[in-house]
Amino acid sequence: MENYIKLVDEKLDDYLRVQYPESIFESMRYTVLLPGKRLRPVLCLEACRIFGGNVAHALPAACAIEMLHAQSLIHDDLPCMDNDDFRRGKPSNHKVFGEAVAVLAGDALLTFAPQMIIENSALSAETTLRIIKEYCKAAGAYGLIAGQIVDIRSETQLAGSTAATLNPQPSTLSFIQTHKTAVLFKLALRTGAMAAGAGEDKIAAMTDLGQKLGTAFQIADDILDETSTFEQMGKTLGKDKDANKLTAVSLYGLEGAKQKLHTLTDECFAVLKTQNIQSKIFEKTLNKIRI
Amino acid sequence: MENYIKLVDEKLDDYLRVQYPESIFESMRYTVLLPGKRLRPVLCLEACRIFGGNVAHALPAACAIEMLHAQSLIHDDLPCMDNDDFRRGKPSNHKVFGEAVAVLAGDALLTFAPQMIIENSALSAETTLRIIKEYCKAAGAYGLIAGQIVDIRSETQLAGSTAATLNPQPSTLSFIQTHKTAVLFKLALRTGAMAAGAGEDKIAAMTDLGQKLGTAFQIADDILDETSTFEQMGKTLGKDKDANKLTAVSLYGLEGAKQKLHTLTDECFAVLKTQNIQSKIFEKTLNKIRI
Repeated sequence: MENYIKLVDEKLDDYLRVQYPESIFESMRYTVLLPGKRLRPVLCLEACRIFGGNVAHALPAACAIEMLHAQSLIHDDLPCMDNDDFRRGKPSNHKVFGEAVAVLAGDALLTFAPQMIIENSALSAETTLRIIKEYCKAAGAYGLIAGQIVDIRSETQLAGSTAATLNPQPSTLSFIQTHKTAVLFKLALRTGAMAAGAGEDKIAAMTDLGQKLGTAFQIADDILDETSTFEQMGKTLGKDKDANKLTAVSLYGLEGAKQKLHTLTDECFAVLKTQNIQSKIFEKTLNKIRI
Repeated sequence: MENYIKLVDEKLDDYLRVQYPESIFESMRYTVLLPGKRLRPVLCLEACRIFGGNVAHALPAACAIEMLHAQSLIHDDLPCMDNDDFRRGKPSNHKVFGEAVAVLAGDALLTFAPQMIIENSALSAETTLRIIKEYCKAAGAYGLIAGQIVDIRSETQLAGSTAATLNPQPSTLSFIQTHKTAVLFKLALRTGAMAAGAGEDKIAAMTDLGQKLGTAFQIADDILDETSTFEQMGKTLGKDKDANKLTAVSLYGLEGAKQKLHTLTDECFAVLKTQNIQSKIFEKTLNKIRI
């Protein structure tokens, strides 16, 4: 896992070389290169390895997913969104670079990521195009953005919407978990498999694993938001409760959320077994998420 | 020209069908579908026609460029950027949908546009990938975003930048004109030519034409910002002067800017002649920009 993290960090550093105008590249680098677990890119590379691919072929997609993740953090932390002053133990992007640059850094990452996939692809044009399409769908109004909109609407009814007020129902929570979190896990695992040239049945298995693993990860995050400390998590905590956010904990309670988390991780292990996948990285990740 | 506008408007309406969560699609539609000249997509389609292509093959790229343009307007108008309350005679996106949704709608458009290019492409994977790469470079830190950063920094030194304070020099103005405006004209003309399968020399000629035409368009816009009325332009005017913005007018004066504008449009006509391009749409556009 350390090897994968090193590969990703070196490549991200390389992609994001500072040039004129410096402030935009410095702002992009600041959040992308904050020390982190690099969980999504690691899963992407591991999916590629599992299906017999050359890990280097999945590296551009893995880095793109980490940049997309950083983009979502930068914009989620903005004053008009979650208004968070800290991320990974450091001041949020807009606290360092100002709101205007933070908005633009997020914007820039959204298209910089697929640009890097194209410019560094060792795959066929067809496979590269398929990976870009997966990326675009995951990043946009059918993916992350849809999840974020419903998430912030779960706190407060947004101006200008003609949609009926949402009820804090399991289906709404499931929509948020799927679109805001699981979408990136599915993207990572699917594109890793695609980079390896895996068959459609294997790619479908990665969709299933990504959905379950991503949902489990979000529930674990919801639990930690309530039970952990700033020092452990590096970001402001207890905000979900303060903001009346719809989370697994607010809907099912701490114990109910933990039960769901354990069911999901059991199901992930079952997918690995059915697919005959041997992966210490997947196992370690699942065991860590169980809390 | 009216046929092209109709083609683009119908396709944009089709691409941006509202689905759950409605507010994000409504916000995207609001700015993208505001009545406008659709100048950039029209130029894209015309470039395709000129080089013997099927105009329908350039339509996804043309629509993507209009969506990218709308994205830049939505984010440029935000309170943390230019803080503009009006656009095309209507309230800005964030005045209708709120800042959070406006940020997310812009984000969503950035990846929705290339997604539509991929999903609706009738071109080879290689050509489609090349168009997507052009799009990503134009949209991001090497294109539009670089231009916007330097533009807002020309008003006020941004926090967090280690770059030296910029001087209001011709080279800085040229950087802004090239990256904030000409980049989309080049993108439109180049991708239109690519969709037609035009040769590299023709694509290079479109780069030249786009650079000159886009710069002329920006200078005309700077002149109108000073000499026109809200009713004529549909947006708040005189803001450049109030904000001490670096523009062709602030650097060269009204008469100097007009001279530069006329030189550039003359050069555009010369490119058309050299390339033996017959296009009433290009000629009409140039004559309109001359003011």
